[in-house]
Amino acid sequence: MPFAPLKNDTFLRACWRQATDHTPVWLMRQAGRYLPEYVATRAKAGSFMGLATNVDFATEVTLQPLERYPLDAAILFSDILTVPDAMGLGLSFEAGEGPRFARPLRDETAISALAVPDMDKLRYVFDAVTSIRKALAGRVPLIGFSGSPWTLACYMVEGAGSSDYRQVKTLMYSRPDLMHRLLEVNADSVAAYLNAQIAAGAQSVMVFDSWGGVLADGAFQEFSLAYTARVLAQLQRDGADGRPVPRIVFTKGGGLWLQDMRALDCEVLGLDWTVNLGRARSLVGEGDGGKALQGNIDPNVLFAPPAQIETEVAKVLQSFGKPHADTQTTGPTHIFNLGHGISQFTPPEHVAALVAAVHAQSRALRA
Amino acid sequence: MPFAPLKNDTFLRACWRQATDHTPVWLMRQAGRYLPEYVATRAKAGSFMGLATNVDFATEVTLQPLERYPLDAAILFSDILTVPDAMGLGLSFEAGEGPRFARPLRDETAISALAVPDMDKLRYVFDAVTSIRKALAGRVPLIGFSGSPWTLACYMVEGAGSSDYRQVKTLMYSRPDLMHRLLEVNADSVAAYLNAQIAAGAQSVMVFDSWGGVLADGAFQEFSLAYTARVLAQLQRDGADGRPVPRIVFTKGGGLWLQDMRALDCEVLGLDWTVNLGRARSLVGEGDGGKALQGNIDPNVLFAPPAQIETEVAKVLQSFGKPHADTQTTGPTHIFNLGHGISQFTPPEHVAALVAAVHAQSRALRA
Repeated sequence: MPFAPLKNDTFLRACWRQATDHTPVWLMRQAGRYLPEYVATRAKAGSFMGLATNVDFATEVTLQPLERYPLDAAILFSDILTVPDAMGLGLSFEAGEGPRFARPLRDETAISALAVPDMDKLRYVFDAVTSIRKALAGRVPLIGFSGSPWTLACYMVEGAGSSDYRQVKTLMYSRPDLMHRLLEVNADSVAAYLNAQIAAGAQSVMVFDSWGGVLADGAFQEFSLAYTARVLAQLQRDGADGRPVPRIVFTKGGGLWLQDMRALDCEVLGLDWTVNLGRARSLVGEGDGGKALQGNIDPNVLFAPPAQIETEVAKVLQSFGKPHADTQTTGPTHIFNLGHGISQFTPPEHVAALVAAVHAQSRALRA
Repeated sequence: MPFAPLKNDTFLRACWRQATDHTPVWLMRQAGRYLPEYVATRAKAGSFMGLATNVDFATEVTLQPLERYPLDAAILFSDILTVPDAMGLGLSFEAGEGPRFARPLRDETAISALAVPDMDKLRYVFDAVTSIRKALAGRVPLIGFSGSPWTLACYMVEGAGSSDYRQVKTLMYSRPDLMHRLLEVNADSVAAYLNAQIAAGAQSVMVFDSWGGVLADGAFQEFSLAYTARVLAQLQRDGADGRPVPRIVFTKGGGLWLQDMRALDCEVLGLDWTVNLGRARSLVGEGDGGKALQGNIDPNVLFAPPAQIETEVAKVLQSFGKPHADTQTTGPTHIFNLGHGISQFTPPEHVAALVAAVHAQSRALRA
C-alpha cells in the first residue's frame, strides 16, 4: 500500500529507545467525549457502535484531537469489545450504562463452543485503519490496539463492567481449565486481530490489559501475563510499509509486576500514575532488553488550572529524568501519556496546556 | 475497667512479631451480609445506622461470626463514615446506593468551617466497644478501627462513593492548601476517635486507607501517608487494661509504597491480594523495625469449592513462608486475612473451610 512518508517519527523513535529532541505525547482515549466535535460526530452516527463501524466517522474522530493539539501519535478510534462481539456475544451500548453482552459466557458449553472469529466480521476496523493512515498523510504514526485476553475475558464472563469481578474470578478459581481454554481462544483472536491491523497500516500496536490489576499476585502471571505473551509471540514484526512495528503493553494496576513484564517480547510498557517513573526506569528501562516507558500522569490533573498542570507535568518528566540522548545507541526513553483514559469532563483547553508543557519542558530537560 | 483475661492471644502475639503455634486469622467485614443471622439482626434494626448506633445490636453482630468460626480476633461492627457524620455532613445509607452525605465539602467556606467533632457524638461507638469487649469475655481480642484521613476526605468531598475521584482530586490538584487543611482536621479527628476506642477497651486499632491506592505516586505520600503518620503519632500506646495496643495500617492498592510504609510508627501492615507476601516480607517484614504482615487472599477465592479454597490458602501461607518460631525473640509474622472485605455473596460454609485450612495448614507449616 502506498502510504505517505512519515513527517513526525518522534513517537516511533522513542518506542525504539532512540534519542528524540522532545518527549512525544499522546493521550489514551484522546478522541473522545471531552471534545465537542466528537460529540457532534457521535450524534450524527446515532450510537457508539454506529461511530466505530463507519469508516468515515471513525477516521473523522481519530483525527479530531490532532487538529487541536500537536500530538505525536494518533490511535485508532474503536472499542476493545469488537473482538468478543465478532465471536457472537452480542455487544450493545446502553445509554449511560456502558457496554453489555447479550450472551455472556457462564458455562462449559459456551466456553467450549468459543472460537477465533472470522476476521471478515472485523473488516470495518481494518478498513478504518487504512482510511485513517491515509487521512493522516504522514503527520504522525497510527497506533492500533486490542484488549488483552484477560481483559476481554472479564467482559465476556461478567457480561458488562463489574466492581468485584465475581463471575470471572469464580470461574477462574473454580474451573481454571475453562479459564485457560477461554484465554487461549482470546489470545489467538487478539493476535489475528492485531496482525490484520498491522497489515492494514497500523505503525504500532498496543495491548490494553485494563483489568490485569484486579488479579492476585500469581494469578496475574498465570491468567493475564502468559496470554499477553502468547499474543506477542504471534505478531507480525513488520508493517504494511515494511517498517518494524513497536508493541506496547499497558497493564492498569500492574506496577507491582514490572519485573515480570520485562521478559515480554515488546518494546514499550505503559504505566499508570501509581508507578514511580524513576523506579520503573531503573527496574525495566535500562540496559539490553530494557523497555521504553509510556505514561503516567493522573488524568484528574487535567481538572486543575493550567499553572498546576504545568507543575504536575514537570513532576512526571523529572521523575523519569533525562531520556537517552546519544543518537548512535539506544537507551531509556519516555513517551508521555496519561495513566488511564482521559475523562469526558476534561476542559479541552487544559489538554492544550498539558501538550504544550510536555513539549516545552521536555526540550528544556534535554538542554 | 475490669475485663476478663484473654484466652486466645495468638492475634496479638503475631501483631508483636512473636512466635505463635498457628497463623491467626480474621476477615475484614467478617460481621456482615453474607451471614443470615446478620441479615436478621439488620432487619430488626431497620437500617444500617440503626444497627451501628445500637449498642446491643452492634454487640450481637460483632459476635456472630465468632459463633460460627474459630476466628482469632473480633472487629468492632461500625462504619468508617461515623466520623464525618459527627462533623455534621449528614450521613445516610440509601437502599442499594451505598453511603451518601447530604452536605459534601466543595468549597473553601465549608472546609474552613470544619473542626474535630465533639467525641460525645460518637459515644455510641465507644459504648459498643466496651459492650463487645465484655461480651467477648476474653475469647479473642477486639480490634477498633477508623478510616484514614485521605479515605474519609474522598467521601467527604465526593459526597458518596466514586469511580474516578474527580471531585476530590480536582480539589487536591487545584487547591492543595485546602486539601491539607481538610486532612489535618481529619487526622486529628481520627486520632481522637481511635484513642476513645482504646480507652473504651479496644485491644488493637486499624486504620483503613481504602482509597490510598487511587493516588498517584508522590500524591500518596503527601496526601495520605503523611496524615496516617499524623494519626499514629497521637495514639495512646496502652489500652484500658494497661496492655500495649498494636496498630495496623491497611492501604488498599498500596503495594508499590511498602518501603515508604516501613517508616510508619505501627506494628502491622495490611496487604491486598496484588502483593507478593514473600517479597513484602523481605521488604518490610524482617529485621529491627520490621512489620507484621496481614492479608491477603482474594475474597473471590471464597466463591470456589472448598478444595480450591484450601489450595489457595496454601499458596498464601507458602508465599509468606515459615513465620518466626523462636519464643525468645521477635521476627517475621503473618496474620491471615482477606485482601479486602468479604463479599455479601460468600457462602458461609466456604468461610468455615478457609478458617479451618488456615489453622491446619499453618500448624503443619511450623512442624
